Amino acid sequence: MSNIDLSVIGKKTEPRIFEYTWKDVVLYALGVGATAEELSYVYENAADGLKVLPSFCVVPAIRAFPDVGKNVDWSRMLHGEMTICLARPIPTEGKIIQVGEVTNIFDKGKGAVYHIQITGQTEDGGHLYDVDWVIFYVGAGGFGGDPGPKAEPIDPPHGVVPDFSISYKVAENQAALYRLSGDLNPLHLDPEAAKRGGFDKPILHGLCTYGFATRAIVNGPLQGDVNRLKEFKARFSDPVYPGDTLTTRGWKIDQGYIIQVNTESAVVISNSMAIVD
Amino acid sequence: MSNIDLSVIGKKTEPRIFEYTWKDVVLYALGVGATAEELSYVYENAADGLKVLPSFCVVPAIRAFPDVGKNVDWSRMLHGEMTICLARPIPTEGKIIQVGEVTNIFDKGKGAVYHIQITGQTEDGGHLYDVDWVIFYVGAGGFGGDPGPKAEPIDPPHGVVPDFSISYKVAENQAALYRLSGDLNPLHLDPEAAKRGGFDKPILHGLCTYGFATRAIVNGPLQGDVNRLKEFKARFSDPVYPGDTLTTRGWKIDQGYIIQVNTESAVVISNSMAIVD
Repeated sequence: MSNIDLSVIGKKTEPRIFEYTWKDVVLYALGVGATAEELSYVYENAADGLKVLPSFCVVPAIRAFPDVGKNVDWSRMLHGEMTICLARPIPTEGKIIQVGEVTNIFDKGKGAVYHIQITGQTEDGGHLYDVDWVIFYVGAGGFGGDPGPKAEPIDPPHGVVPDFSISYKVAENQAALYRLSGDLNPLHLDPEAAKRGGFDKPILHGLCTYGFATRAIVNGPLQGDVNRLKEFKARFSDPVYPGDTLTTRGWKIDQGYIIQVNTESAVVISNSMAIVD
Repeated sequence: MSNIDLSVIGKKTEPRIFEYTWKDVVLYALGVGATAEELSYVYENAADGLKVLPSFCVVPAIRAFPDVGKNVDWSRMLHGEMTICLARPIPTEGKIIQVGEVTNIFDKGKGAVYHIQITGQTEDGGHLYDVDWVIFYVGAGGFGGDPGPKAEPIDPPHGVVPDFSISYKVAENQAALYRLSGDLNPLHLDPEAAKRGGFDKPILHGLCTYGFATRAIVNGPLQGDVNRLKEFKARFSDPVYPGDTLTTRGWKIDQGYIIQVNTESAVVISNSMAIVD
């Protein structure tokens, strides 16, 4: 049991400025596995211009986290779900103004579930994106709070061949590289920290897997047009390790695709959907 | 024929400040192939502290290049040789004060040869390193200048098994990653630029190969002690491509090792020596 501070709900952070250059955009792309052949993600002077992967928005977003209350034990906070909603293309450089907010804390009995939203705007006030984190605080439920709505299952149609399937190998140094984009949790690099977290060895960042999946969706059905991805929601259902191969599959629905990501041995992103133009 | 401006010789640049953090150190290490297992190069909180590869000094050095004269055609400037001399360990973060100088321009007939030296100091004036570039300016010889001294050959002893041999695979994205440490020449990423430069496809930065070799020397005979490498001189004798495997071999001599680096098909670093403690 932990003390859950419900008073943090609805309090917005002061606007925070995130300034970045094309190097941050390219470092992120390499961090989610972009290759030298994917010139438009890794080359600032690419013939058709540098393209920003839509999931890049998580890099600034992580810097605008709101206060989640005192005495929170971060080692028991697990990233459960992620949704990004893109209002317009992310610029290749400049300043993004962000506001963070704990929008809700639900009581799921075994754990508390924090819903956190980061909103990003351009300097002139244009809405760029909303990024929604769902974080499970293990063992912190039972505080008599609202259990919240039941998640609607999003499952691939049974026995139906996917409309696309793209596999990428995760390099052995992938987590070491991805973390330079800002998530320095030692769980993803330090074998001792991984053991303390209950893993045999360091695991890949959930958001790195999420970036691989975003790249697969853009490179596959969206044919490289980063601006066509409007929303991507994912649940992190199993850990990924550097060296794994990630296979992203999609089944066409009206608004986009039901998405599932697998390693050789597990479903690692489930209950997932991409909304596309 | 080109105009060679001999008046640039001996003119020192104003001191230039290079400020960096552990992230630059780690980005460089990943850029020269360090893996997630080499925690002391890639993890800021490594148990025995973050170690700076001695060849990291080329990252600041490239920012302190002196004026080499007007109307120089950089597309005909080839990096021929590199020597680093380390006076003390490179800090994991901070400010380095550098001065650059064209120390000589020799007339080799077919080309002009520029010798460029960058000296680095700590903020309190402690001598950190000297970095010496030898650059061939193709087709710019015959200006009636000093031919300079003949290079002394440094060859491995014939038929003798090396004292160490370490192979590292160069990742397909290696040049895309290495260039984020500051050498943005499109020759190393853009297939069109590579063709204009006379190559079938983008080649690895010579200094990236140099970093792989430095890592091999430190990880091998120096058993991970970055402070034992005092000097490393290398000639770039053939291009390396992402995907190649680099084998660094060393033959013990009094002061250190004669070094040679091969790919599967060519000697890529020759006339090379490491001086060690």
